[in-house]
Amino acid sequence: MEWERIVAVEEDLIKANERLADENKDYFKDKGIKAIEVLGNIGSGKTSLIACVIEQLREKYNIAVINGDIAGDPADIARIGVPTIQINTGGECHLDAKYIRPFLDELPPETDLCFIENVGNLICPFEFPLGCSHRVVVVALTDGPFIIRKHPVTFRIATIAVINKIDLKDFLDNDPEKLVTDCKGINPKAAVVLTSAKTGEGIQDLIEAMNL
Amino acid sequence: MEWERIVAVEEDLIKANERLADENKDYFKDKGIKAIEVLGNIGSGKTSLIACVIEQLREKYNIAVINGDIAGDPADIARIGVPTIQINTGGECHLDAKYIRPFLDELPPETDLCFIENVGNLICPFEFPLGCSHRVVVVALTDGPFIIRKHPVTFRIATIAVINKIDLKDFLDNDPEKLVTDCKGINPKAAVVLTSAKTGEGIQDLIEAMNL
Repeated sequence: MEWERIVAVEEDLIKANERLADENKDYFKDKGIKAIEVLGNIGSGKTSLIACVIEQLREKYNIAVINGDIAGDPADIARIGVPTIQINTGGECHLDAKYIRPFLDELPPETDLCFIENVGNLICPFEFPLGCSHRVVVVALTDGPFIIRKHPVTFRIATIAVINKIDLKDFLDNDPEKLVTDCKGINPKAAVVLTSAKTGEGIQDLIEAMNL
Repeated sequence: MEWERIVAVEEDLIKANERLADENKDYFKDKGIKAIEVLGNIGSGKTSLIACVIEQLREKYNIAVINGDIAGDPADIARIGVPTIQINTGGECHLDAKYIRPFLDELPPETDLCFIENVGNLICPFEFPLGCSHRVVVVALTDGPFIIRKHPVTFRIATIAVINKIDLKDFLDNDPEKLVTDCKGINPKAAVVLTSAKTGEGIQDLIEAMNL
């Protein structure tokens, strides 16, 4: 095993991805699509949050969703009620710019807002931008007090950080304000939004932070 | 970017890791150490579960903990009250057999039970066994209804699957029994244990499943 070879390949991948992400960005611009990536912890409620946002914006935009999973059921995402594309990676832990490119051509031509939900993983996706205008990083209050400060690499690339499942705060020993402080310490530029996909709390703030 | 080259490097890495995991297994055997890997979702309560188990076994074993994180605070793991080694990977999403090897020499010589907590990530660690006798995969009931069925690759390698935070079941729309069924469907051989690190429920079952 040659470590130099592995490091070289990783660097190549990251550089190549950046170039391809720029191409995706141009693609979205040409087609008039606002593209928003939603990444973050598995089980933090990414799909439910996207569904809440769509519920509010259904009349304003022609929305589509691309959803990445290791092994997701297309029916689970189709329930959102807009055109959806399920990408199952098999074992791959993140989407990348090259991987999503052919799926962009499958979006309905009238699409002007596209959410791309990355594989649920708070680590690996950070290095592989997809070319979206926002990178929304989602965690849940149920994920414990260390969830942000243990992942500076991911919160550094967030344009918006979401702390979801805020409705459970009375049952947890986890102060949401401390998580907000952790996030601001790592990335003062990111908007931080507290939400509950269950009660709808904070969804309007999230929509505003996304400039939608 | 040459995909063949990347795939070849990944295959090399996985094969090399398997060989080094076998060497670690021999090391543990020679030293008389029971080594148990705890992997799974970030925020699922891996560290708290290890602390609960240690509380019960403190008199029976000389226990040590190796803890992997992207960016963890050694003080957070030191509070367990046994010798601890904090490995911060920077950005690397999993431990591997080669990576942990030098840290094994730092274990106190009397150690006869060692928990190795992997980086909180429900995907990437599955391909990189460390040489432990158990691979305990932890998720939380708060991680939602898809948490197991979306990760067959990881649950397939589990010797024990733990569904933690069971104390919150009355506040969630997530039936623990359905998660148990999902797990049994993917891997009938794995023991499935429901726990609460908060109330202590299921900790004795977990200890028995670990053969401790």
